[in-house]
Amino acid sequence: MKSNFLKIILTFSLLFASSLFAKEKVYKLKLATTWGPTAIPLIDAPKNMAAMVKKMSNGRLLIKVDASNKHKAPLGILDMVKGGQYDMGHSTSYFWKGKDIDTLPFTTMPFGMTALEQYAWFYNAGGMKLMQKAYAKHKVLSFPGGNTGVQMGGWFQKEIKTLNDLKGLKMRIPGFAGEIMAELGVLVTNLAPGELYTALERGTIDALEWVGPSMDIKMGFHKIASYYYTGWHEPGAETQYLVNKKSFNKLPKDLQEILIVAMRASAYDMFIQNYHLSGLALGKMLKEYPNIKIKAFPKEVMDGMKKANTLLREVVSKKSALLKEVLDHQESYLKQVRPWSEMSDYLYLRDNLTK
Amino acid sequence: MKSNFLKIILTFSLLFASSLFAKEKVYKLKLATTWGPTAIPLIDAPKNMAAMVKKMSNGRLLIKVDASNKHKAPLGILDMVKGGQYDMGHSTSYFWKGKDIDTLPFTTMPFGMTALEQYAWFYNAGGMKLMQKAYAKHKVLSFPGGNTGVQMGGWFQKEIKTLNDLKGLKMRIPGFAGEIMAELGVLVTNLAPGELYTALERGTIDALEWVGPSMDIKMGFHKIASYYYTGWHEPGAETQYLVNKKSFNKLPKDLQEILIVAMRASAYDMFIQNYHLSGLALGKMLKEYPNIKIKAFPKEVMDGMKKANTLLREVVSKKSALLKEVLDHQESYLKQVRPWSEMSDYLYLRDNLTK
Repeated sequence: MKSNFLKIILTFSLLFASSLFAKEKVYKLKLATTWGPTAIPLIDAPKNMAAMVKKMSNGRLLIKVDASNKHKAPLGILDMVKGGQYDMGHSTSYFWKGKDIDTLPFTTMPFGMTALEQYAWFYNAGGMKLMQKAYAKHKVLSFPGGNTGVQMGGWFQKEIKTLNDLKGLKMRIPGFAGEIMAELGVLVTNLAPGELYTALERGTIDALEWVGPSMDIKMGFHKIASYYYTGWHEPGAETQYLVNKKSFNKLPKDLQEILIVAMRASAYDMFIQNYHLSGLALGKMLKEYPNIKIKAFPKEVMDGMKKANTLLREVVSKKSALLKEVLDHQESYLKQVRPWSEMSDYLYLRDNLTK
Repeated sequence: MKSNFLKIILTFSLLFASSLFAKEKVYKLKLATTWGPTAIPLIDAPKNMAAMVKKMSNGRLLIKVDASNKHKAPLGILDMVKGGQYDMGHSTSYFWKGKDIDTLPFTTMPFGMTALEQYAWFYNAGGMKLMQKAYAKHKVLSFPGGNTGVQMGGWFQKEIKTLNDLKGLKMRIPGFAGEIMAELGVLVTNLAPGELYTALERGTIDALEWVGPSMDIKMGFHKIASYYYTGWHEPGAETQYLVNKKSFNKLPKDLQEILIVAMRASAYDMFIQNYHLSGLALGKMLKEYPNIKIKAFPKEVMDGMKKANTLLREVVSKKSALLKEVLDHQESYLKQVRPWSEMSDYLYLRDNLTK
């Protein structure tokens, strides 16, 4: 009798102990980024996310962030997350368009939505659902990872007054925007980031596109280029978190929610951080090099780019029904929300111009 | 011997049980909002925050959100959080300017920062520190709670062509903006929200300011007013979370972090949700009432408002050294970052106008 009682007590003790243990189980995830260890603010999004997750989970979920110098495959993030070498990634969706054209429109599109319009599309108008649909075949979840805002049109050595000035121009501009430029007669070249400064300085190229003030300043282009053109091709480039579905499903529900909220908060934070850094960097560049001319492409050039864009969108839309669905969905949403952007942000800034 | 052993086992069982209990202790907080139960999207920020917190904490932190119909003190949120009747609040800072002028500049200022500039100021340029400084005397913590974006200048029955058109105009416009309007000869009146529609319809007032399309549409002003003027006085009105310091300090560190991250994410989310809702509402209003004229105030009127604003800022700055410090800090930050807003968002929207 007593012995039975003892057994019961022991069983309960073990139950308590194991339930306690289960609560405190530590989950560890590995995250690979496209970015180098000093690529601020891009690298800050996953780093800050991991720090938030650790604190919120009281150390029960630990995420190790590997910069590209660690895994040596900056453009292989989707493959590594898909294959399970990494549980998570931080990169940007249009890098995989060569492997899966459906992933193209979740970063940004030329003449497309601004960051605010695109966040509204993702979170309030069905964009998230379409993105999950596009990534379902890879058994990977995808979330916004932080926005660069409007990316600049690039650094040019001579003024672009007409469409003719683009013909024969040697420019580094990758991706869909590069295809548009090629359509207009630009000789699009691709160079490694480390070679860009020298190539522009020596005249090997006449122009190049990078990101915007926050990241361009570290490349030093403002020291050698004459014109800084405003943006048209990446009005709100969103980076991206990728999560291997199996890794995600292994987490308890509370840690899943902690991960999701931390990704969302860190993405918004990166967008804001980049806005801040761009403001400061622009001021610094113009102070040190007051002769830099900031220009918007003239109407003729813009119209030419828009026409080439429309043409190339039609071509690419034929490659996949899902891609066409997403592009049409984005275009229709932009039409709905843009009048508000004009009535609010545009007119407010117009009526308070600093010069 | 056996009996001693039994005691030891029992003691361990209790230790396990209590340690388990400590882990699972449920914390309950009460939050009071200024908003009514259907004031979307304002009320959604604290509701979504509470839902995130519940899921992330696995039910260990529960926040009950009371709309204003529950506590009947929509403008008494700071007092209730300070006094401990509520642990938290969701409202907006400039509501307390009558009690403490230092709280004025954390919502928005006429001709001041846009939502993006202001978030950058809060999170990257010292704004948060200044806000905590202003609220320290109340033993309350304060956090951004979601932004309305640019608020509209209001609904008018006649066109405003010159400063003279403002003289004698009867308008409902509260707060600092109302003082500016009064300076320009407007007869500023204050009416309860429920009386506004009838007052505008019957000509008791000639104009009124509310929020923006997302919330104005429910008030129905577009059915009876001729002109919808764009914004100048609240370019990025931020709502606010308040947290009683004692209530906050009682929480374990992980729940504090969960609360902080959920407040931040829900604030950004509300800003984006409102952008979306405003886009949709504007489209709907203009479709149903195509004769509504959207106008920006002409330069003469804007200049008059700016002049009155500068004057009133000087007057109010004299009331408190901390207020002056914050206003100067904001102004200096705006000067740093605005050229980037113009080069990015403004020029991009300008070169892609829908009409």
